[in-house]
Amino acid sequence: MDIESTAQEKSRFFAGASGQVKSLPGNLKVRVISISKSIKKLGQDDPRRLTHSMKVGLALTLVSLLYYARPLYDGFGVSGMWAVLTVVVLFEFTVGGTLSKSLNRGFATLLAGFLGLGADYFARLFGKKGEPIVLGILVFLLAAAATFSRFFPRIKARYDYGVLVFILTFSLVAVSGYRVDELVVVAYQRLSTIIMGGATCMLISIFICPVWAGEDLHKAVASNLEKLASYLEGFGGEYFQSCEDLGKAVGSKDGKSFLQGYKSILNSKNSDESLANFARWEPGHGRFPLRHPWKHYLKIGALARQCAYQIEAINGCIGSDIQASQEFKSKIEGSCTRMSAECAKAVKALATAMKTMTDPSSANPHVENAKAAMRDLKFALKAASLQNADFLAIVPAATVASVLVEIVKCVEKISEAVHELSQLAHFTKTLEPTVSPEKPQQLLHRGIIQPVSGGDGNDNVVITIHEISTDSPENGKPDQKVPKTGQRLMEV
Amino acid sequence: MDIESTAQEKSRFFAGASGQVKSLPGNLKVRVISISKSIKKLGQDDPRRLTHSMKVGLALTLVSLLYYARPLYDGFGVSGMWAVLTVVVLFEFTVGGTLSKSLNRGFATLLAGFLGLGADYFARLFGKKGEPIVLGILVFLLAAAATFSRFFPRIKARYDYGVLVFILTFSLVAVSGYRVDELVVVAYQRLSTIIMGGATCMLISIFICPVWAGEDLHKAVASNLEKLASYLEGFGGEYFQSCEDLGKAVGSKDGKSFLQGYKSILNSKNSDESLANFARWEPGHGRFPLRHPWKHYLKIGALARQCAYQIEAINGCIGSDIQASQEFKSKIEGSCTRMSAECAKAVKALATAMKTMTDPSSANPHVENAKAAMRDLKFALKAASLQNADFLAIVPAATVASVLVEIVKCVEKISEAVHELSQLAHFTKTLEPTVSPEKPQQLLHRGIIQPVSGGDGNDNVVITIHEISTDSPENGKPDQKVPKTGQRLMEV
Repeated sequence: MDIESTAQEKSRFFAGASGQVKSLPGNLKVRVISISKSIKKLGQDDPRRLTHSMKVGLALTLVSLLYYARPLYDGFGVSGMWAVLTVVVLFEFTVGGTLSKSLNRGFATLLAGFLGLGADYFARLFGKKGEPIVLGILVFLLAAAATFSRFFPRIKARYDYGVLVFILTFSLVAVSGYRVDELVVVAYQRLSTIIMGGATCMLISIFICPVWAGEDLHKAVASNLEKLASYLEGFGGEYFQSCEDLGKAVGSKDGKSFLQGYKSILNSKNSDESLANFARWEPGHGRFPLRHPWKHYLKIGALARQCAYQIEAINGCIGSDIQASQEFKSKIEGSCTRMSAECAKAVKALATAMKTMTDPSSANPHVENAKAAMRDLKFALKAASLQNADFLAIVPAATVASVLVEIVKCVEKISEAVHELSQLAHFTKTLEPTVSPEKPQQLLHRGIIQPVSGGDGNDNVVITIHEISTDSPENGKPDQKVPKTGQRLMEV
Repeated sequence: MDIESTAQEKSRFFAGASGQVKSLPGNLKVRVISISKSIKKLGQDDPRRLTHSMKVGLALTLVSLLYYARPLYDGFGVSGMWAVLTVVVLFEFTVGGTLSKSLNRGFATLLAGFLGLGADYFARLFGKKGEPIVLGILVFLLAAAATFSRFFPRIKARYDYGVLVFILTFSLVAVSGYRVDELVVVAYQRLSTIIMGGATCMLISIFICPVWAGEDLHKAVASNLEKLASYLEGFGGEYFQSCEDLGKAVGSKDGKSFLQGYKSILNSKNSDESLANFARWEPGHGRFPLRHPWKHYLKIGALARQCAYQIEAINGCIGSDIQASQEFKSKIEGSCTRMSAECAKAVKALATAMKTMTDPSSANPHVENAKAAMRDLKFALKAASLQNADFLAIVPAATVASVLVEIVKCVEKISEAVHELSQLAHFTKTLEPTVSPEKPQQLLHRGIIQPVSGGDGNDNVVITIHEISTDSPENGKPDQKVPKTGQRLMEV
């Protein structure tokens, strides 16, 4: 419809001499339509943005009552504008952001106010002539020291705004003390209006459609895991299929969306860290108590990024122009596809466990399966012998195999981190009647019957049978008594 | 000394009953020493932090003159505090940051001031009773709309502070207009003090030890390239040496610093982008004219990150526990070491060209050499035949080779981007008497004599001879007429 209207505009443009004049309102209309569309998209992507905007408007209008209502005005005087200023400056998108700024502002104002009064008192000791000089020196020293403290990463992360307000208030109090005699009255009025503004912000942000930074962090980390899972889920098929049919135009076009999702994880560090910083300030809410281990989410986030870096390295292999050896590929296809698929299932199970805050041990069998597939891959590689070994053609597939091994290790670490989180945050235990969660490893080494639900709804059962081997999987050089690995895939 | 004093404290602690009381000032001393050490380190890491702190102190003290000097005070009244507030809020570390905030604040204040006056005039039309209601609705609507506009990424990046000030000023002017009758006088006083505060900030930040965001961006991107170069320089030796001597404790300890440098590149996106945003606001300075292509630095930065992701993927291979096949490794060692070394030289030359703002074509031969080494690697892989092919042992080395190929491609893109930058920013051309920069490819395909200066000062000459081949290097499947690659290494 957008294109149609511009086409109409164009045809009109060439229609006659007055075309250009006529098209102007039309062009304006097109621009207005495109802007309103982007506004609509912005609102639809996250409807909380709309409510946040209205909450800010509401808080400002409420605080303006300080001016409108005469009794309040007589009480507070011009200081009422501090309430307006406070609301505009303090109101942040998340509850944590608002609270952190409010508390920072409150404590900094108090501390700086007292220090400013002290500085003022101290300066008066030096007489009429000495007072401005001493005050000037004190303001210079305090401002310089406080500004320097903002370079400390810890202070920068948590108290940056507090230090800013400290400098501001100290200068104002110390300097206006020289002029205004009823300083204490002014300070009282100012502080009470600031508290009023801050309280309005806090109450509205907590009680009207609250946006919790902690919940956002929780969801963001879980959704990053899901993005990893959906990549790994599709990778095996995409990579090993892409060579089978060279006319892969349809497959890659469909695949683009889930193969690109992980890219947003690469640069997630800053947003994760700021959310975690804000979450610290939030009271208990919903499923998250006061001392929820928010810092631990950063650990999981870092591991997810680590995994995404590895994916970035193999993502180029899908569309690679180097033709991989079909013979070699077929030798590793089974174990590689299984590694990728089992990692995907494990990460998905971990993401689900995080989202529902339940025990993540349902991921354990998948992690073990992925590790078993990794060992299978090693045996397959050791046993492989090719008729005509063209190493150039082997390199790309070998790279995929090697990076998948790294990904399995990374997924194991993610699983450990989520398990730690589940203990720290007391995730609820779910009953698992079939597999005892205490000793999954012992069971898995003997054999597993693991129902696998395919994407199209057809159910497969994978039966993997391993003998118990004593060699450590990390060693990679098992002794000559290589355990026989049997594996059958049965379509049900 | 630090440890000694704590040891003394401890011995004193057990000496007698009064020990604990005595040790308190000692512990305090230790803490003070450790804090002052970290302050010293922070200052030494970047001495501009100290000057910045003093500049803020100076600006605040200067602006306080507005209060101290009686004639000024009589002129401006309490509005003088707006100058103090302006300085505290506007003064940023970089010139671009200060200018962007100042201009945002200036324009937003003007616009919101006029709109506020208009709103006030409009509301008066509704009589005494309607006025507060109409004003309230207007404040709500404007504040909500402006808050929503902050979610647009473009506005967020450049005008976030301006929108904040707009909401603030509009509310203040519209609301105080209801009370203060001499609104225009107040507005004039407020604006003039704000301009005075802003001008103080801008002048001090531009003329006293200025910190230019543009220069910082320029240096940061160049230094990221240098970090990549120093990794690639060391990688070949580190990887192929690490298996030769298994007792590699000394080598890896020495190597830690340059092998970790690239990690800071992985998360450089945000700082690069904010620097580029600030640099846009800066006037011409030093070697950078007004319309310097700052946006182009982001492109180079993104490619450097891309390269760092690849490095992250092979970095694990250095300390890998899987023993790579020595036979296979020795077959690819020559070309892989050369790829890594030539990439390092190319990236280093590009970084130097950026730093000195000279023509980057001295990197071209190295890029070509790296590509030649890449082709050599392909031929070596095609020609390789191993006695007992253990594929498990081949995988890690093959991965390194494959990722190095990706790195060579990435370095070529970086080289292109730096060349584009050199044209956009008019880097000075340097005379190169030996190699004509127009046709290095033609020359290089025939044969190169390239002096290689080793780290220990002994000079080698590498003579690489290729026949002109018609197959594209990307194809990877050259036809059967494989060109013979002769290569000799002569110690001079």
